[in-house]
Amino acid sequence: MTTLSGVWAASLTPLHADLSPDADRLAAHVDRLLTDGCDGIVLFGTTGEATSFSVPERIALLDRLVAEGVDPGRLVVGVGCAAAVDTVALTRSAQGHGVAGVLMLPPFYYKAVTDEDLADAYNWIFGQLTGDVPAVLLYNIPQVSGVAVSAALAGRLLDGYPDVVKGVKDSSGDLESLRAFLSAMPGAAVFPGTEVLLVPGLDAGAVGAISAAANVNAQRIRKAYESRDPADMEILVRDRKALSVHPVIPALKSVVADRLADPGWRRVRPPLRPLAAEAGANLAAAIV
Amino acid sequence: MTTLSGVWAASLTPLHADLSPDADRLAAHVDRLLTDGCDGIVLFGTTGEATSFSVPERIALLDRLVAEGVDPGRLVVGVGCAAAVDTVALTRSAQGHGVAGVLMLPPFYYKAVTDEDLADAYNWIFGQLTGDVPAVLLYNIPQVSGVAVSAALAGRLLDGYPDVVKGVKDSSGDLESLRAFLSAMPGAAVFPGTEVLLVPGLDAGAVGAISAAANVNAQRIRKAYESRDPADMEILVRDRKALSVHPVIPALKSVVADRLADPGWRRVRPPLRPLAAEAGANLAAAIV
Repeated sequence: MTTLSGVWAASLTPLHADLSPDADRLAAHVDRLLTDGCDGIVLFGTTGEATSFSVPERIALLDRLVAEGVDPGRLVVGVGCAAAVDTVALTRSAQGHGVAGVLMLPPFYYKAVTDEDLADAYNWIFGQLTGDVPAVLLYNIPQVSGVAVSAALAGRLLDGYPDVVKGVKDSSGDLESLRAFLSAMPGAAVFPGTEVLLVPGLDAGAVGAISAAANVNAQRIRKAYESRDPADMEILVRDRKALSVHPVIPALKSVVADRLADPGWRRVRPPLRPLAAEAGANLAAAIV
Repeated sequence: MTTLSGVWAASLTPLHADLSPDADRLAAHVDRLLTDGCDGIVLFGTTGEATSFSVPERIALLDRLVAEGVDPGRLVVGVGCAAAVDTVALTRSAQGHGVAGVLMLPPFYYKAVTDEDLADAYNWIFGQLTGDVPAVLLYNIPQVSGVAVSAALAGRLLDGYPDVVKGVKDSSGDLESLRAFLSAMPGAAVFPGTEVLLVPGLDAGAVGAISAAANVNAQRIRKAYESRDPADMEILVRDRKALSVHPVIPALKSVVADRLADPGWRRVRPPLRPLAAEAGANLAAAIV
């Protein structure tokens, strides 16, 4: 089993013309990312438009990927849904494939929830799982999900479920938040959810980074991971700035489409919209 | 078919001990609410913990309710999910039963979305529907969903789909917001999502109210609807104040449980938690 550390790409999910998930394009993309220096791949994170797919679509796509030869031991699979019952169903599917781990958003529809409420929700989910439960990475991305996983909650879940909770992806983008998770979760796999915090995070005790930008600059992230050279980090910051002018998921898909000369890669599911062609061309030139 | 106007209850969803939805308790609750003066019932709104159930659970519960004799013509069914494909599946299920309408949240996971993005999402959803599409009420509840349906967007969708979009439930709780929907959607069924704006809303041109509190005070809402008497409205405001001290869904379930002497009614799905017993007893005494 792949260790939960190093450079992980939060993969995009390519689509067919009818907006159904495209397992062939995705399997090829996963291969490229691993070749380009990623230690593993997160499927169905925010970047993967996870919540825009139905539960059966998500289960079927993972089944197809593994059938096409993608090594499940290199995969962390996003499983967190608004409905805890769906989170359980997706975790069981991932468990059946022997994945390296699952990435678990808390239930994210209701916003006025306390740590106590969320602890109960995670307790309920963990209580539904049996057998060899995959390593759980908690997923903190409050600016999108609207529901924070606090460092205190993460520490409490790590204490309560040491055989299940193995780490966190902190996509707050904030080094102080990352430090709080590191303090609250000693020995756990703490990942910043951005390559921009790769070296500062490693210096603070994080195990690597899970990165959306890795879909288009994995080799450069690998280089910075190995060198820890500020000059290499500056290039990552430059790439991120170029991406951040645009909605990031359509922007990343546009760059992949341009590189592969495969316009179908530009497709996104609603409520996202493809990047305008001209913006895409400028972006592809900036991220070379 | 019931007209989309008057007093509608945003029904709670009672649960079995294993937290599966309880169709028997729900059918009896719907009967009580109609007897108590509701013109119709919204199933699977925010109050109904809609997003805490899987799509198959939601479809099966509606099937069971109709099989138990609940008149689908008195129902508006919540269908909006994070994944637009799920919204389509739930709308088709509701359509198959000939419901009075559907209540449609926009896709609510991604937050940095524009009216343009959401218009495209609704376009995509409407484009998947065929035949006699049920009346669509758009659902604006940004404080929970995190994604606002603006009055401008609602007006645009009404113009684009006059045979489909028939109104809005504006749960912002803000009379100015309600007025903006009334201006943008002439002739449509504009409902405030709270009984506290019942008479002010009617005076401004709204068609009634869709109310969570109606689960426990439908008769009083009916009375205020008929009388438009400020004294009757004051009682509704008093009830709402008593409820608002607590998380509202557990509070409402607690009151129903106490009235029916049926503690099972207190159950909620995570991330919600049942109201503490003492708080529940005090609340039941306040809402008599």
